[in-house]
Amino acid sequence: MKIVHIGAGGVIGRAVAEELGKRHEIVRVNRSSGDFQVNMEDPASIARLFNQIGHFDSLICTAGAVHFAPLAEFSVEQYSIGLKSKLMGQVNLVRSGRKYLREGGSFTLTSGPTNEDPIPLGTSSAMVNGALEGFVRSAAIELQSDRRINLVSPTMLEESSSLYGSFFVGTKPVATADVVLAYVKSVEGRQTGCVYRVGWTRER
Amino acid sequence: MKIVHIGAGGVIGRAVAEELGKRHEIVRVNRSSGDFQVNMEDPASIARLFNQIGHFDSLICTAGAVHFAPLAEFSVEQYSIGLKSKLMGQVNLVRSGRKYLREGGSFTLTSGPTNEDPIPLGTSSAMVNGALEGFVRSAAIELQSDRRINLVSPTMLEESSSLYGSFFVGTKPVATADVVLAYVKSVEGRQTGCVYRVGWTRER
Repeated sequence: MKIVHIGAGGVIGRAVAEELGKRHEIVRVNRSSGDFQVNMEDPASIARLFNQIGHFDSLICTAGAVHFAPLAEFSVEQYSIGLKSKLMGQVNLVRSGRKYLREGGSFTLTSGPTNEDPIPLGTSSAMVNGALEGFVRSAAIELQSDRRINLVSPTMLEESSSLYGSFFVGTKPVATADVVLAYVKSVEGRQTGCVYRVGWTRER
Repeated sequence: MKIVHIGAGGVIGRAVAEELGKRHEIVRVNRSSGDFQVNMEDPASIARLFNQIGHFDSLICTAGAVHFAPLAEFSVEQYSIGLKSKLMGQVNLVRSGRKYLREGGSFTLTSGPTNEDPIPLGTSSAMVNGALEGFVRSAAIELQSDRRINLVSPTMLEESSSLYGSFFVGTKPVATADVVLAYVKSVEGRQTGCVYRVGWTRER
């Protein structure tokens, strides 16, 4: 399988690329390194990316920025960071990439738990993660010829808990290996329209 | 109670304003009619609105536009309609309005079921409705001094089923009176961070 992987340099991205790289061709895409470069906030840059790469069997995105700030201080411009990058960046990967995705192929996007399990400073993150859940479920019923789309929503990683633990109070961090499994299920399985919540459930 | 109501002219809006108007002061806000006018897509217009109205006890929004189109044809500009109007329009009502919302007061925003119960042409609607759910749950934990925020997510209305029934196949429409109850619960009750799904549940 030829897998286009945007964000293969992050903590999750590296682990996912290592596992899937054992049995698939990984085309690494980052902002300034990798096999190809893309600016996720720029729809034209995303369109150019697929012109360069051509057809593929699977796309994984483990990239996307979002701003954290108190609700009382959030500006319109700060909200637009998450809307342009993590939300519309991933949506535009699907918009532009679907013409190059082979029949039976899949998109796997990444969100997080803050839309159901909110944290202080997280209104933009919550908005973007909720939007991604809605988009993925909705896009799944419109993709044709067995093309699929799923979303991986991991809670805080064990590797990140020393850095982010104070934001996610009372949260049990998850092993990166468990998160990798969700990407494997999405890429190599046959499900579509799924939100794989790793390390958390929405029934609390 | 002084209730600022954006979108009092729509099908839901009229019914909500009629019921709550029996026992509260309703300040009607629309694009070009009502007591005050606002362009929901313009954060500056929203900021001016609250400068004009001053302090209030409750805000209801039953307005907001979103575009419907096939996933295969959706443009970036078409997605931005829903992001600017129904999503950020409502978010900016909270951003700018919170300084004027009295202690113990509430925001009540409006979404819809497409993020959990998707329909063809509805990827933008799904995205926006999912974003609103995340935002409301997250904003609820940051509002202070007993200020509250809830979301009403009604399915297709009986009044609209002749118009929209073919988009919502297999959907049992809901009576407008049942939808009104959710706004009453949000405004006159004490709950916060709730998504009131009227006529549908997310467990299917």
